[in-house]
Amino acid sequence: MSGKFIVFEGVEGSGKTTQIGQTADWLRINTDRGRKIVVTREPGGTKLGQQIRQILLDDLDNCVSYRTELLLYAADRAQHVESLIRPHLDRDDIVLCDRFTDSTIAYQGYGRGCDRDEIDRVNQLATGGLQSDLTFWLDLDVTIGLERVLLRGKPDRMERATIDFHQRVRQGYQELANIYPDRMIRIDADRSPADIQLEIQSTLRQLKWIDTQAPIAET
Amino acid sequence: MSGKFIVFEGVEGSGKTTQIGQTADWLRINTDRGRKIVVTREPGGTKLGQQIRQILLDDLDNCVSYRTELLLYAADRAQHVESLIRPHLDRDDIVLCDRFTDSTIAYQGYGRGCDRDEIDRVNQLATGGLQSDLTFWLDLDVTIGLERVLLRGKPDRMERATIDFHQRVRQGYQELANIYPDRMIRIDADRSPADIQLEIQSTLRQLKWIDTQAPIAET
Repeated sequence: MSGKFIVFEGVEGSGKTTQIGQTADWLRINTDRGRKIVVTREPGGTKLGQQIRQILLDDLDNCVSYRTELLLYAADRAQHVESLIRPHLDRDDIVLCDRFTDSTIAYQGYGRGCDRDEIDRVNQLATGGLQSDLTFWLDLDVTIGLERVLLRGKPDRMERATIDFHQRVRQGYQELANIYPDRMIRIDADRSPADIQLEIQSTLRQLKWIDTQAPIAET
Repeated sequence: MSGKFIVFEGVEGSGKTTQIGQTADWLRINTDRGRKIVVTREPGGTKLGQQIRQILLDDLDNCVSYRTELLLYAADRAQHVESLIRPHLDRDDIVLCDRFTDSTIAYQGYGRGCDRDEIDRVNQLATGGLQSDLTFWLDLDVTIGLERVLLRGKPDRMERATIDFHQRVRQGYQELANIYPDRMIRIDADRSPADIQLEIQSTLRQLKWIDTQAPIAET
């Protein structure tokens, strides 16, 4: 497996989608060897995952138990890793993914208070041990993020959770960034999208995965 | 928790649905203390489980990976245990369930060849340790069972698996029955439904969960 797996994490409204799109565009122009750039997300990165995403984010009359939620995210992830992420990494592609295992630790662990050992066991089972090569954590005050989400329209089940919940999620990301400083890079997301993108490009250039002669794009 | 949890297991076409219905009818008449009898099934015993069942048994263009399948069954089970089975057992009800953890061991473990430790860990997570008080294994030659299924109409994804697969599933049930003789009762299902039902009633009477003065019903 010789591709690269780059994950974008952060609370709702932190600008992940915008940054992933711009990073993919920039990498397509600037990577050496014409590497293929793949953009995907969790939940919902596969056709089966779309059906699971529908269950997870929809309104439901019945309450989803925490364990059910944890196992549904894991099922989505297992299918995603096996049918999409690993095959692309085996072909030397660069995979950019909106959320991965750290989301489960932050949301289900810190947010919901699920047992951390259970989460680690389920993550291990779902991924077969796959970790990101690099994770950009777009860090933003949760009230700013949730305001952005509300402006977009009808919030989903996760977005409707309380401010307290999202504060705990942010705290989870902070602790993960402390524990894994080599893999997880905090990016201050309370800035213009262009400034955030420049920092992401600068970080990627330093890692020498791309042609270091390429200029940093103006966005 | 003072209710009773009775599971029916067996290969496709072994007559579980018929036997659960007749057992429920008989228990409703013959249990002491007017206990409530609840009939349910996996996958699909809850509203959320119905959506998961749809994913699991439907035709899909994309292939479901074994781990995804295992985790989806577990998600269905977690929701089922937490929102339906445990609450009924807490109310002293008798719950009759079409398939439970032994199905996962037989189908995913013996049938698909998934790692048994992984299955045990996922089952533990999904059930929180809940086991059946009694499991009736309706044992039938798989070719007879699959012939019955084909007569019913369009077989689902699991029913279309090979004869070899279903032979391994049956072997799995046999080994489980050897390991857990107190919990798992083999019932020869290559007999008339009435004969099978009489043996089930006779077994339940011996366990003294019901009014032992009640006659065995003519079915």
